[in-house]
Amino acid sequence: MNQVIKISATTLIVLLWGWSPTMAQKTLDETAETRTIKNIYKNMLLESQSHDWLHYLCKNIGGRLGGSPEYAAAVNYTSFILDSIGADSVWTQSVEVPYWRRGEVEKATLINSQKMGNVTLQVAALGFSGGTEGSGITAPIIEVRSFEELQKLSPSQVQGKIIFFNRPMDRARLNTFHAYGAAVGQRTRGPREAAALGAVGAIIRSMTVKYDDVPHSGVTIFKDQTPIPAVGIGLQSADLLSEILAEEPNTRVNLQLSCRHLGMRTAHTVIGEIRGSEFPDEIILVGGHLDSWDIGEGAHDDGAGCVQAMDVLHTYRRLGIQPKRTIRCVLFANEENGMYGAKEYARLAKQNKENHIAAIESDAGGHTPSGFRMDAMAGVAKTSFERVKDWRSIFASLGVWDIQGGGSAADISQLKDQGTVLFGYRPDSQRYFDYHHAETDTWETVHRRELVLGAGAMTALVYLIDNYGIK
Amino acid sequence: MNQVIKISATTLIVLLWGWSPTMAQKTLDETAETRTIKNIYKNMLLESQSHDWLHYLCKNIGGRLGGSPEYAAAVNYTSFILDSIGADSVWTQSVEVPYWRRGEVEKATLINSQKMGNVTLQVAALGFSGGTEGSGITAPIIEVRSFEELQKLSPSQVQGKIIFFNRPMDRARLNTFHAYGAAVGQRTRGPREAAALGAVGAIIRSMTVKYDDVPHSGVTIFKDQTPIPAVGIGLQSADLLSEILAEEPNTRVNLQLSCRHLGMRTAHTVIGEIRGSEFPDEIILVGGHLDSWDIGEGAHDDGAGCVQAMDVLHTYRRLGIQPKRTIRCVLFANEENGMYGAKEYARLAKQNKENHIAAIESDAGGHTPSGFRMDAMAGVAKTSFERVKDWRSIFASLGVWDIQGGGSAADISQLKDQGTVLFGYRPDSQRYFDYHHAETDTWETVHRRELVLGAGAMTALVYLIDNYGIK
Repeated sequence: MNQVIKISATTLIVLLWGWSPTMAQKTLDETAETRTIKNIYKNMLLESQSHDWLHYLCKNIGGRLGGSPEYAAAVNYTSFILDSIGADSVWTQSVEVPYWRRGEVEKATLINSQKMGNVTLQVAALGFSGGTEGSGITAPIIEVRSFEELQKLSPSQVQGKIIFFNRPMDRARLNTFHAYGAAVGQRTRGPREAAALGAVGAIIRSMTVKYDDVPHSGVTIFKDQTPIPAVGIGLQSADLLSEILAEEPNTRVNLQLSCRHLGMRTAHTVIGEIRGSEFPDEIILVGGHLDSWDIGEGAHDDGAGCVQAMDVLHTYRRLGIQPKRTIRCVLFANEENGMYGAKEYARLAKQNKENHIAAIESDAGGHTPSGFRMDAMAGVAKTSFERVKDWRSIFASLGVWDIQGGGSAADISQLKDQGTVLFGYRPDSQRYFDYHHAETDTWETVHRRELVLGAGAMTALVYLIDNYGIK
Repeated sequence: MNQVIKISATTLIVLLWGWSPTMAQKTLDETAETRTIKNIYKNMLLESQSHDWLHYLCKNIGGRLGGSPEYAAAVNYTSFILDSIGADSVWTQSVEVPYWRRGEVEKATLINSQKMGNVTLQVAALGFSGGTEGSGITAPIIEVRSFEELQKLSPSQVQGKIIFFNRPMDRARLNTFHAYGAAVGQRTRGPREAAALGAVGAIIRSMTVKYDDVPHSGVTIFKDQTPIPAVGIGLQSADLLSEILAEEPNTRVNLQLSCRHLGMRTAHTVIGEIRGSEFPDEIILVGGHLDSWDIGEGAHDDGAGCVQAMDVLHTYRRLGIQPKRTIRCVLFANEENGMYGAKEYARLAKQNKENHIAAIESDAGGHTPSGFRMDAMAGVAKTSFERVKDWRSIFASLGVWDIQGGGSAADISQLKDQGTVLFGYRPDSQRYFDYHHAETDTWETVHRRELVLGAGAMTALVYLIDNYGIK
């Protein structure tokens, strides 16, 4: 009885929604598709130029915060490549983004420790950090391990102090992204909560599980608070600072930062597409974000994702595969400092009534693929998840074993309320936070085969969505 | 009816085989075991010393061919560590191994090319290569891409020549071990087949998929042939040589190698165990091979496997887990130059009627875990494979997703005919052949978390076998 009702309900929904050509789901030919996709992989392992493109982005351009001249150079370069590999059309979307610049000076010195004298601490200003003037600010330090500890301090304890958030990322977590998610709040909102209580500066233990003395940057958000100087500190420097404070709690730190918020600037999101032959209005987006932190080269974050997305288009062209749907490569502006590019892209997509059936973003590094995280609005999620389930064994034969619901990626999440099925590409996470937002995020740490296999996983997903639909 | 017959048959087999305590299979409590194993992982990620042990092996000892003083130092060091972490007993097994030593000189020079003059080629002698005297040998080169091409040459074409085997490893294969397996024959038997036809030397394109100029060593086997000078050549040198030969086919190469076969020497396999409390005679072996090539530091091959096997025992001790069965760490002598240690170990196990129920070997590098390959003799395989199937979802929750039958690892394969269920530990393969048998196989290329997660996967498998049996 229940079953009969269910069948009737389904039929009714189909009748009410109407019938479109794309709803006539093709039966999956697993053997044939596995063979085709493995041939695509072979071609990519031999012919992909993504690692060379990444070399140019990293070495000839380097770190590229939204609004910077370096970012503009990256827009020019990727537009040129998308054009040269034969995209049907290449264009850019302009967007106003906040422009923050580090400048030459960033220095933290623990001064006049009885035991150690003056100690240089390894720091890097966080994005949107306030700068200092003249000889900088000098203030005592209060170390906390949590927001609860901060809230327990009296106003007089915080007033005029530098708050040192020293909670480590949990090294015991298997997936380093989980450890990051649980700890990053002290970077994104620690400085503003300290400022709200009257602190004059903030030092944040770097978001990494590698024990070294490399400081990691990343955005901090002040909202209504006036920005105070805020830096990430290397783990060895953090531990040294903590030990000295335990013995000499009145020791002070001098912070000198030349970083400045320089107002709004124009940046561009880069777009290139291959038009579909049968359903050109159904867009499958592949993308990453073109901006990166200024220290390091933006190799894993997210040069890797950009060149992988470009490689999807290039692979279609190299192999002469004509997609039925439109495959669009989007390199978003300004993910790191507020996602302005992605928000503008989504706004225009809605305004122009574009139909993004799926979006795949790579923004978790260029390491060996493990899988995808899927997300979609209610009413879309169930059908699309079922569809992808049919593809699991194809992906498993490629080593892409971990496809789950929950989460996707920052930029494409802006499209969720337009009914787009979202896929966040996920590679192995073990090494990512050794490099993330730090000077160590360089081209040399991206392995060609691992990078290309990631582009392969994205191409395979695009291929299956193009041929079988997704919702 | 069929079903009734099946049940009766099963019952009959049980009656005929008798009933042992270990046959009373415990029902798997997946939730509880997943929790326990995740706690083991957490402890290992925080407390494992395996990466530090590997540092000592690589930096204080370095490359360690069987029979060398360096190998003896590695025996002393690992015996000391196994003792200090609280193994119930630690001992060594002596075995006579062939001792081949590289010496100071290995040089290949393409001489008097009209276009290039004299060109230094990047080479490394293969294990068991013959040496040269005085100013070395100088001979013309014949390039071949396969054994078929070699066999097609006339005796006069080969006589007095150096044969250049230039077939590349197939970069288009997803799993680099498959590419290695398909190409390594030209290294292991190329030189002897060339020698049998009258060649005076052999140059072998290195077994790697990384395009650089690092030569890779590895064993070559002459059997009844008198060893001729035989070297691995870097890929860039190989391509240069091939290009010059195409234009100047009569160009000659001078080879100077100081390597020597120095006869048999005594080496030792290192063993440490924790005795089981309920079934001490049932041995679960975990191991790797302690010897390594002399160029490089033997980090991935196979220092990583050794310290992972030691870490399994250490983890049991750190957490105070008392195993029911005996867990034995075995660090085999001389895998690289003929598996003499493993053969002797298996001979003694048989002679002493030891019961190795399972053996797990890590000899595929220290990268992020992917799974295990299983092997066992007929009559054992089916039951054990079924048992492991029950554990799949526990392993999947640890990121160990790829458990398959077929193959295991070189040393433990010697135990197959004693009914041992064999497990070859498998990590991600993408970077392994960048380092394998080359000077690039250094400690810096082994990532602490990836190494420890591998030891975690091995510990999880040992834990499940100890608690649920395997056959």
